[in-house]
Amino acid sequence: MTAYNAPVRDIQFVLHDLLQISQQDLAGHADLDREFTQAVLEAAGKLASEVLAPLNIIGDQQGCKLENGIVRTPEGFKGAFDQMRDGGWTALDCDPEFGGQGMPKVIGCATGELFSAANVAFTMYQGLTHGAYSAIHTHGTDEQKAMYLPKMVSCEWTGTMNLTEPHAGTDLGLLRTRAEPQEDGSYLISGQKIFISAGDHDMSENIIHLVLAKAPGGGESTKGISLFIVPKFLVNADGSLGDRNSLSVGSLEHKMGIHGNSTCVMNYDGAKGWLLGDLHKGMRAMFTMMNEARLGVGLQGLAVADAAYQNAVAYACDRLQGRAITGAARPDAPADPLIVHPDIRRNLMDQKSFVEGARALIAWCAHLIDRSHLAGDAEAEALVSLLIPVVKGFLTDKGFDTAVQAQQVFGGHGYIEEHGMSQFVRDARITMIYEGANGVQALDLVGRKLAADGGKPMMAFFELVKGTIKAHEADEELRAGFLEPLKAASKDLQTATMYFVEQGMKNPNAALSGSYDFMHLFGHVAFGLVWTRMAAAARQALASGASDRDFYQSKIATGRYYMSRQLPATATHLARIRTGSEPVMALAEDQF
Amino acid sequence: MTAYNAPVRDIQFVLHDLLQISQQDLAGHADLDREFTQAVLEAAGKLASEVLAPLNIIGDQQGCKLENGIVRTPEGFKGAFDQMRDGGWTALDCDPEFGGQGMPKVIGCATGELFSAANVAFTMYQGLTHGAYSAIHTHGTDEQKAMYLPKMVSCEWTGTMNLTEPHAGTDLGLLRTRAEPQEDGSYLISGQKIFISAGDHDMSENIIHLVLAKAPGGGESTKGISLFIVPKFLVNADGSLGDRNSLSVGSLEHKMGIHGNSTCVMNYDGAKGWLLGDLHKGMRAMFTMMNEARLGVGLQGLAVADAAYQNAVAYACDRLQGRAITGAARPDAPADPLIVHPDIRRNLMDQKSFVEGARALIAWCAHLIDRSHLAGDAEAEALVSLLIPVVKGFLTDKGFDTAVQAQQVFGGHGYIEEHGMSQFVRDARITMIYEGANGVQALDLVGRKLAADGGKPMMAFFELVKGTIKAHEADEELRAGFLEPLKAASKDLQTATMYFVEQGMKNPNAALSGSYDFMHLFGHVAFGLVWTRMAAAARQALASGASDRDFYQSKIATGRYYMSRQLPATATHLARIRTGSEPVMALAEDQF
Repeated sequence: MTAYNAPVRDIQFVLHDLLQISQQDLAGHADLDREFTQAVLEAAGKLASEVLAPLNIIGDQQGCKLENGIVRTPEGFKGAFDQMRDGGWTALDCDPEFGGQGMPKVIGCATGELFSAANVAFTMYQGLTHGAYSAIHTHGTDEQKAMYLPKMVSCEWTGTMNLTEPHAGTDLGLLRTRAEPQEDGSYLISGQKIFISAGDHDMSENIIHLVLAKAPGGGESTKGISLFIVPKFLVNADGSLGDRNSLSVGSLEHKMGIHGNSTCVMNYDGAKGWLLGDLHKGMRAMFTMMNEARLGVGLQGLAVADAAYQNAVAYACDRLQGRAITGAARPDAPADPLIVHPDIRRNLMDQKSFVEGARALIAWCAHLIDRSHLAGDAEAEALVSLLIPVVKGFLTDKGFDTAVQAQQVFGGHGYIEEHGMSQFVRDARITMIYEGANGVQALDLVGRKLAADGGKPMMAFFELVKGTIKAHEADEELRAGFLEPLKAASKDLQTATMYFVEQGMKNPNAALSGSYDFMHLFGHVAFGLVWTRMAAAARQALASGASDRDFYQSKIATGRYYMSRQLPATATHLARIRTGSEPVMALAEDQF
Repeated sequence: MTAYNAPVRDIQFVLHDLLQISQQDLAGHADLDREFTQAVLEAAGKLASEVLAPLNIIGDQQGCKLENGIVRTPEGFKGAFDQMRDGGWTALDCDPEFGGQGMPKVIGCATGELFSAANVAFTMYQGLTHGAYSAIHTHGTDEQKAMYLPKMVSCEWTGTMNLTEPHAGTDLGLLRTRAEPQEDGSYLISGQKIFISAGDHDMSENIIHLVLAKAPGGGESTKGISLFIVPKFLVNADGSLGDRNSLSVGSLEHKMGIHGNSTCVMNYDGAKGWLLGDLHKGMRAMFTMMNEARLGVGLQGLAVADAAYQNAVAYACDRLQGRAITGAARPDAPADPLIVHPDIRRNLMDQKSFVEGARALIAWCAHLIDRSHLAGDAEAEALVSLLIPVVKGFLTDKGFDTAVQAQQVFGGHGYIEEHGMSQFVRDARITMIYEGANGVQALDLVGRKLAADGGKPMMAFFELVKGTIKAHEADEELRAGFLEPLKAASKDLQTATMYFVEQGMKNPNAALSGSYDFMHLFGHVAFGLVWTRMAAAARQALASGASDRDFYQSKIATGRYYMSRQLPATATHLARIRTGSEPVMALAEDQF
């Protein structure tokens, strides 16, 4: 049985020492002082630790069940969902016009981390709803917004995203689901969708499905795709629920993890749907939500990793096995705790320096989204668009690795399901796959984002790195431990970027052969940047006479670990990138 | 549903082109010509593909069940075990004096790979028996050998190893199981053991448990530990089965994977046992078997990775998604197969170059064990002792990574249990943990093996690398692609070795903080060495006019991939090692 404690102090550090959110010239941000966010985080943390976390292993063991066409969630999920809803947590970062509390994304991400860490399968029901809410909020008509949003903000109705079909995953151009226009302006939707998270369940009155389908006249490629609102129960003009729509759950998938979330095969048999956004522009509508959805998956990578890390630390401090090489640490005990062993420390420091770096990177990205939404900051939007595939790909790869490392601390006990460490690994695994598999993130980064707007966002990132180094170059303490490694790593990233710019046109295979390594190389440099900024912020706090010196010192030490022991990986990624396509593409298909 | 094809051609290459086993001056090796091993491998491959592989997912889904104190294995396991036994496969590399076929280890490993790849959980029943066989063969009295070995060679009786207790995993000094001497020379064994693989099942008449316990007079440390033979059914003087011994299965563990193998909590309640080997020298007896057992786990890492890889290749060739960036490869199809995409190639080449390198490394180690056993070659034994923790730790870490990468090729389908890719990941995960968790392997390598015999085995390894480079330096083709990268990587390993030699005594934490990275650094160099030798062997075959040029050319191309895209990781590992203990040990326990 695992436990979870909300890392409130660490999040406060990111919000206030690093990002200084209450000093930002953005709507509503002046209210977000330390006291306020402390209260929000403590309340969310209490719900996460006391209600959601105990249901995590129950969700894993019981899973969801399809009974007579209705999906039953695990014991306790419905009650917990009610608490989530009643506490106003689902409305936190939604538009006040539709009942939301209007908090910025950076706060929504902070509380979202706590809920996902405690129970990622459970939190997905709300997460998917928020995605559908955003789509309708951005692309819906006033009538659609009025009809759906208030109930989705409160999660009285939940939402889903229906993209994948059996033969069409990444390649949505292959979609076969059809939308047939009706005289009343609605459409009849027919086809089968798979891997539909939260596709059906027993925790809400209605489910609002957003479905990609091809309407006549758009051609066979992705250009022919439109997005439709297809509710489980039709909604009457007065907002009450009407007839059951012609859609059903074909089956539930048997998955490696996230058993508490119902992953459905959905059958649409001439179901009534309404166009959301423009006809044949469904892909564009999807893409506008992509940044937030992918940031959300990166957040899951961090969240599950932190939960796994916390349990690994507790076990390492508790489990007595062997003696410290430098002499018994607990001579009166039969053995020393695992944490005395350098290789266990190495493992835990890898985890800790990842988790805290990831939290800072996510928060920074959320803040950039806020800047874009609240202040129309186009540069912030361009930068976050560049960073998103890195956040999704790197954080979920490393989040999974972290869960595996946390499991390893438990030795044989980590392999036994009752300890819950296997669940973290199994749950984390999906984050590398859904919302665009990580190879697709790498392709998006190298094939689209890198060259966007003549490479300006990438240049802006390098300027940020340069500016950060310049701002602190007088600080002797930061120089060797942070600024120099950051400079070296950033140089590797620049070299790789130049390589792609040179190869891109004349040899696209060479660029794409290195895309995955580039995503990781970029991830390391982004971590180097946020760790340098965190160290600088911690030194600033110490210089200002902050009382919790121990906290700030451990922050700097953890950063130094990342800089000295993780950042050197950039050299290996660069070496791999520079081999180009020759070794990668050398074999014929039948030589594999 | 996964499929498995025995890689007979690749194994033949390793046995004959690389190791030239039939030309070795070792007992029985002259008979091991290409024709003979081809026949053996084809027969074993047929059993693996047609009988064992189809039971793999059945074993995962059904698991083992404890019914009225008896463990029931999944449907079909008993029949398959009979076929394994009747085919003589369990006796393959056993002593002819006890009914074995007397094949060398290198052949046992080759067939073992096929069985483990097809169904690792199933093959463990035999693997554990072989380990217990070896222990009795090495340490047993003539009477014990005569009583137990013939039935264990045939697997009419199977065997287990009982080490772990709830509070004692790596630290066996904490064992509480007691052995009370009786007047007739036997002992009464009392205590609880956990994680006992194949602890009970319904596929053999008897189970011979080897149990570590403390007998009076040996003190409380590991020095007081002895090894005992504790049969499930007592054996009468005429070899027939007598009374049930006082031992029972407490429960079955619910594991992340290898569901088809019964992992038992075993309770010994004054069970009758007989000392195996010397009193209070149980740990020494265990250690003599350690090399083979750990090689066997490294072999599992390779085997599961190969099975996963094969299925990933098949899916990548079959699944149509997207278009090649350089223009449609199958313009008449709705999309191109995944394998056209450079990032999918990168993924598959990572897998392929690992699997084939691992196979060569395992075979080389098995051959060194044969040299030691059959020719008393002390240098071979010292070298393989050095290599074993690398093989166990590196091959299982990378084997798991490979399974994860193979699963990734399937996208969302990889996360669905029916496709079987999740099972490979879950099954592979245990290999990093059991038979000494990989952190313990790293400790064994740096803390014990590196300095063994004044560092001579390590020097011998470097001499081998140097000799290999020297032997081929006239070969222009090998120089840039193989010899130079090998030289650079080997230099990193030498630098790291020197660092440990310097730090070892004065700062043991510095050495141990880098132990895990050293294990991986060493693993890469060992792969670099075997890949260079394989490339040289392939060039030799091509020069000699071999007919299957395509095979040999793809071998060289795969090696070049490893050398150019995996070997550069040595620089990162060296950088991590050189940071020493400061960043690793910087935090106090309560700062985690």
